[in-house]
Parts: sequence; structure tokens; C-alpha cells
Amino acid sequence: MEANMILLHFTDGLIPVVVQDAKTREVLMVAYANDEAVQLTHQTGFAHFYSRSRKKLWKKGEESGHVQKVREILVDCDEDCLLYLVDQKGAACHTGYRTCFYRTIDGIIVSEQVFDPSKVYANKGQ
Amino acid sequence: MEANMILLHFTDGLIPVVVQDAKTREVLMVAYANDEAVQLTHQTGFAHFYSRSRKKLWKKGEESGHVQKVREILVDCDEDCLLYLVDQKGAACHTGYRTCFYRTIDGIIVSEQVFDPSKVYANKGQ
Repeated sequence: MEANMILLHFTDGLIPVVVQDAKTREVLMVAYANDEAVQLTHQTGFAHFYSRSRKKLWKKGEESGHVQKVREILVDCDEDCLLYLVDQKGAACHTGYRTCFYRTIDGIIVSEQVFDPSKVYANKGQ
Repeated sequence: MEANMILLHFTDGLIPVVVQDAKTREVLMVAYANDEAVQLTHQTGFAHFYSRSRKKLWKKGEESGHVQKVREILVDCDEDCLLYLVDQKGAACHTGYRTCFYRTIDGIIVSEQVFDPSKVYANKGQ
């Protein structure tokens, strides 16, 4: 824990993180971070998370190159959720869409695919 | 479940919801919804959630009047997170700030307080 950081409330060791494009203000994704991922994000300026399925820390873009340079980390009123404001390289979503939120709840696609995932990922991953 | 709605994945009956101002694109809050809250939001056009602490469904603004008119509901790639794009009446945060994300992780306030919570809430609530 760094000196002036707000004390965060983790649930089962994790805190949800909303990632927003700092320039376009588009919400790109939601993922989870453990304390180590938050510290690494704060220290390195690149978004880190904890994968619940793979049970490991990951740096966004470590495989795809689609890293997120973090401009600011905001905390919500209850200190149990974070917001990373980022410069997104490439696209945020492993499906090739710029944002993970590319569909309405009725299944209508409202975003654009900016890369072909089969050419970016050797294995499924983010 | 309505006819064309995407099948959502709930964890312990809940799904996280990011709420974003449809005009300013500001991320206002993150809360949780159960299936009933999602259906009510979809049907009524006003944001509904499920309070984990109070263990009940709630309509945002039911006490404060600070309702959220929902313009669009988006789903993420994994179908385990929602994004409500809303017109926010008043302010989203029960502390009186327009957004719940009014501080950086280092404790610096970066948003403005737009109402006095003691004058809006008889009891603590949202």
C-alpha cells in the first residue's frame, strides 16, 4: 500500500474495475483486480487485472499488444470499485471489437470490429 | 425473459451494472442487478438494481428523486456485465457528488458536489 492511497474494500480478494477510454469516454470493459494488480497499475501506469478463470495476474495486452496506458485511477464512494481512465492501443475486446459492450441487450451490434482475433491471439485470451 | 434478449450470466443471482451518462459520457456508478431488476429496467425505462446490503430490489432515485432514465442497455462479450446509458436527474451519488467516482485513488477530489445529502435523504440510502 502506498502512502496516500485510499483503503480499498476487496471481496474475496478482488475489486471490480471499469475501464473507460480517456479521450472518447467510451466504456471499454469491466474486469477484476486483486491488490497486487492495483499496485502494479498504479506503479507502472499500465492496466493490470486478475483473471478469475485463469487464476492469475495479467497485464492487459500482454499477448495481443493492446495495452492500456492508465491516465487516472478513480475510486467510488464505497471504495469497492475502481475506474481506470486509459489510452487504449488497438481494441479492448478479445472478440476484435473496440469495446466489450458492442451489443444491446436485444442483441443488436452497435460497435465496430477493428481487428480479426484469429490473427492476434495464438490462444484464446486477453 | 423477453423474446430477443441476450441470455445473461448471473453470479449468485446478480450481475454488475455500470451506469454512464448518455450525454456527458461520465461513468456515474456501479451497482448490481438481479434478473427482476434487469427486466424492470428494460420494461419501464428507469434504472433498477438489487441492493446487496438491504437485500431488496430498488429503483434508483426512489427516495431522492434522482432517477435514471435509461436510453440503452448494453451487454459485454461474456454476457456477465451490463452498461446502462442514462439521463441522470440530479446526481448519481448519495454523497451529493454527480458521480460516485469523485476521487482519485490518492484521495484527490476531482468532481463537484451538486446537492447536500442531509437535505435529500431522510435515511441513508440511494
